[in-house]
Amino acid sequence: MPDVAYLNGKYLLLAAAKVPVMDRGFLFGDGVYEVIRATGRRPFLLDEHLRRLQNSARMIDLACPPSALFRKVIARLLKQAGYRDSSVYIQVTRGVACPRKHVYPPAGTEPTVLVAAWQMSPRAPEDFTRGVECITVEDFRWGRCDIKSVNLLPNCMGKELARRRGASEVIFVRNGLLVEGGSSAILVVRRGRLLLPRLGPEILPSLTRKLVLEIARKRGIPSAVRPVTVKELFAAEEVIIAATTAEGVPAVRIDGRRIGTGRPGPVAAALHQEIGRIREGRR
Amino acid sequence: MPDVAYLNGKYLLLAAAKVPVMDRGFLFGDGVYEVIRATGRRPFLLDEHLRRLQNSARMIDLACPPSALFRKVIARLLKQAGYRDSSVYIQVTRGVACPRKHVYPPAGTEPTVLVAAWQMSPRAPEDFTRGVECITVEDFRWGRCDIKSVNLLPNCMGKELARRRGASEVIFVRNGLLVEGGSSAILVVRRGRLLLPRLGPEILPSLTRKLVLEIARKRGIPSAVRPVTVKELFAAEEVIIAATTAEGVPAVRIDGRRIGTGRPGPVAAALHQEIGRIREGRR
Repeated sequence: MPDVAYLNGKYLLLAAAKVPVMDRGFLFGDGVYEVIRATGRRPFLLDEHLRRLQNSARMIDLACPPSALFRKVIARLLKQAGYRDSSVYIQVTRGVACPRKHVYPPAGTEPTVLVAAWQMSPRAPEDFTRGVECITVEDFRWGRCDIKSVNLLPNCMGKELARRRGASEVIFVRNGLLVEGGSSAILVVRRGRLLLPRLGPEILPSLTRKLVLEIARKRGIPSAVRPVTVKELFAAEEVIIAATTAEGVPAVRIDGRRIGTGRPGPVAAALHQEIGRIREGRR
Repeated sequence: MPDVAYLNGKYLLLAAAKVPVMDRGFLFGDGVYEVIRATGRRPFLLDEHLRRLQNSARMIDLACPPSALFRKVIARLLKQAGYRDSSVYIQVTRGVACPRKHVYPPAGTEPTVLVAAWQMSPRAPEDFTRGVECITVEDFRWGRCDIKSVNLLPNCMGKELARRRGASEVIFVRNGLLVEGGSSAILVVRRGRLLLPRLGPEILPSLTRKLVLEIARKRGIPSAVRPVTVKELFAAEEVIIAATTAEGVPAVRIDGRRIGTGRPGPVAAALHQEIGRIREGRR
């Protein structure tokens, strides 16, 4: 059960996969990515992830291979890897171009295509039973966070700051409004309603968020997509971290302040259970 | 006269230098860089570049090798390369860490250290004799452009947009104020005074800019460091692109509008000549 990769047409061990230093992914972060959760050989929300990858690529005029290629590659990698739970990682960059120049290389330059499958690091069960802490940071990322690019240094800085303060996620806020987490969507339950900020250039169209809205509709949980203030975040009954690998983690303290009762709430638990159920195929 | 590189202790041809795909430079753009111009075996403003590299690294808590190592490596690479004019490129990333996680890897993780020397692409002489065009774009980069990181996708997007419009540089503006170029500092000559925006988190402490201020002082050109409005940019007698490889390129049209007489001005010419003179060592 090894960590495996596909790189530009070749299948190999992940540890053996290397790219030239002149790759624009390494020099400029000029690339897009997706992380897909797989249960056994079944990647979850694959169509949606591939559609978002193509959208991200289109927004930066990056020639991305067709989704059919990724389907084929992912099937083979998951078979090779053989894990019960894996993360499938896709990254497409604008390829290798010399000399180093910011402007895009000539049409016809081959993109670098990486797909990898590794064992998923499971979240600690206590994250769900006891909840986690978060910190807020004024959003200092770029203005196009709707593009899932590998320009992720501010996310790394924010999440590292959270870690140093004993928290497990950073929540980016902008002008008094909630934006999103360092690698997650943030859901707020306030007065019994699920509140989610509007999509826009500063926020990633999260697939888990989309799934949560569908579940809420089906389950009759009232929800609203509208600007959510930082005040509402702190006054919430529940705050929930939603991401491909998080699937509904309750945030019970933010910036050291207790959220709701300070214990995981019912909406987080319901969403976590339901997302898991759908992913496991017991729809 | 080959393009050569030093990568993690080894000297090799640049084309042979590769990094694992799990390098945080490739996955997150989690690294810092410098581009140094060298004339023969003499790197220009080496101390200043190395100091800025160390500063950038410090700001993101990245363990950077001591400057003495870079001095030794650069001397050897420039000897091997043997070009009349070369670009020395340094990039230090937070190294290879599995599994992929935003938070920084444990202390002791070896950084990835790349130094490369390649032949400098000279600017077209017409850029200086006829001037170039620029476009303005509302700054959509992150909030810490004072850190010279490889999160450069917005710079690439901006410069590519400029190229498609027949321009050679993008000028980022923010709330009606001039910030800087996509890979340059932008100097404005207005009513006979050289105007430069203040340094801050949204702007790189440009070394060429610093040199220009010294030259202005020495030559008696009045200068002021203060907020520069977009209005002043368009009403300028001269607008000058200043960077390690540009060294004073006159911008004669911005967004299709003529700047000053629409021809290169005397301050651009004087700065270009003087920077070149200092670099060539005829101080």
